[in-house]
Amino acid sequence: MRAAERAQLAMMLEVCAYPKPGNVDRCHDYPDTRLEHFLASTILARPALEEAERGVGRIGEIIGHAVQLTNIHSGGNTHFGAFILLIPLVYGGDIDGAKKAIEKTDVSDAVAFYRAFALTRVCMNAGDELDVNDPTALHMLREREMTLLDVMAHSAPNDMVAREWMTGFSLTRRGADLLKQFGPGRASIGKMFLTLLASEPDTFIVKKHGRAVAEETMAKAREVLDGIRSVEELDAECIALDINPGSIADITIAAIFVALGEGWSWDS
Amino acid sequence: MRAAERAQLAMMLEVCAYPKPGNVDRCHDYPDTRLEHFLASTILARPALEEAERGVGRIGEIIGHAVQLTNIHSGGNTHFGAFILLIPLVYGGDIDGAKKAIEKTDVSDAVAFYRAFALTRVCMNAGDELDVNDPTALHMLREREMTLLDVMAHSAPNDMVAREWMTGFSLTRRGADLLKQFGPGRASIGKMFLTLLASEPDTFIVKKHGRAVAEETMAKAREVLDGIRSVEELDAECIALDINPGSIADITIAAIFVALGEGWSWDS
Repeated sequence: MRAAERAQLAMMLEVCAYPKPGNVDRCHDYPDTRLEHFLASTILARPALEEAERGVGRIGEIIGHAVQLTNIHSGGNTHFGAFILLIPLVYGGDIDGAKKAIEKTDVSDAVAFYRAFALTRVCMNAGDELDVNDPTALHMLREREMTLLDVMAHSAPNDMVAREWMTGFSLTRRGADLLKQFGPGRASIGKMFLTLLASEPDTFIVKKHGRAVAEETMAKAREVLDGIRSVEELDAECIALDINPGSIADITIAAIFVALGEGWSWDS
Repeated sequence: MRAAERAQLAMMLEVCAYPKPGNVDRCHDYPDTRLEHFLASTILARPALEEAERGVGRIGEIIGHAVQLTNIHSGGNTHFGAFILLIPLVYGGDIDGAKKAIEKTDVSDAVAFYRAFALTRVCMNAGDELDVNDPTALHMLREREMTLLDVMAHSAPNDMVAREWMTGFSLTRRGADLLKQFGPGRASIGKMFLTLLASEPDTFIVKKHGRAVAEETMAKAREVLDGIRSVEELDAECIALDINPGSIADITIAAIFVALGEGWSWDS
């Protein structure tokens, strides 16, 4: 199967997987962001994913193109974090290829990425000097000659998606291994998501609600794995408090992409 | 928006729409055919839909290509009927264009279509002399110089999808008009599906369970519209008896495609 299609299947399988505490799934929408927004974005991203598959053009530009193609619905940002991982993975074909691809990024990738970022409504850390809403940010990128990899290094302490670029896609790797360990079929996706949630504080939750809430959610996910708490209960609690582990969802998509490429089957 | 993408959005919106009595939707799978199979087929059909959009190649071949691309999962036939409607609609851009496109089909389209048909496990009428499992069928098509339009004329009495080719896509038209009448947003899709179900016996139900069951289902859908019966009750009843209005689902997809092209919005 073509890498672009594999990426689309990963996006589709992630959003359908149920239950995923706090996130949009086949049984749960947020009022402004619904299952159909995620699936429309999955369909509309195709031309950018095909560019990545052909391996021509620059990573930053292609991420920008993906954001542009998928930002035409009212559901807000659905896959920005996922594209940060998927575009290098599709470009390189696998994790090794992705690592080589991101090492080649330069300041033009960083600039294109920031322009894409400005199109989204991604949660930012307050007081970040590389705030995309600050017109001097692009100037600063150029002055410091920051590559896109440098930008990710800058964001990595507070963003687990950016951190994947620095760690050789370590959580993506772990998620793919978990899928293979749990075996074929969609049920493994929810289980893998929950396992990652139980082991890492989601930085999207940190940005929205602070570190304590992210760590509490992690502890509760651990209790679900230990059979102390039901997954439905955790899901309902997260939804009520607007706690959505969006970064682990992004990593879940990347992990499904990698696992599919290594022979794991969703269809059983 | 490109016609191929519009077709994919129509396929995605139809399968997600809930509740659709008896059919797969975001809240209900059949044991062997699940939401993910329909959505994978939606993603994988893209190259065939793009061929149709470019308007090069023959309708029969493109339908065959769509079936071939989407038959790689274990969920069986998901969109064969939909492709019979969508491929001419994408090819022609709208209903008028589709009518012109199907008039140009010839015996080579009919042969390609029958080869595609043989790849699927579509429910057949017993004793049909054009049975695709009969190796003499292709010979007969050539001998009688049947076009694909002739094949549809042959099937029309027992198949409401084929009948669309003969009636100028009349139910597709009605479905699109209903969507526009019901207004923007996904809730209109379920309402349109139910309205068609209440006014036409679904020929897929006829083939599987006989005309009496199809007419009974139609009468019950009417009772839902009249407020006598709940849609959830009809859904549960259809599922328990394996009654799935698959042909009206195909027409629903075509109707969404047409309505989207005429400015109806799913996203509100």
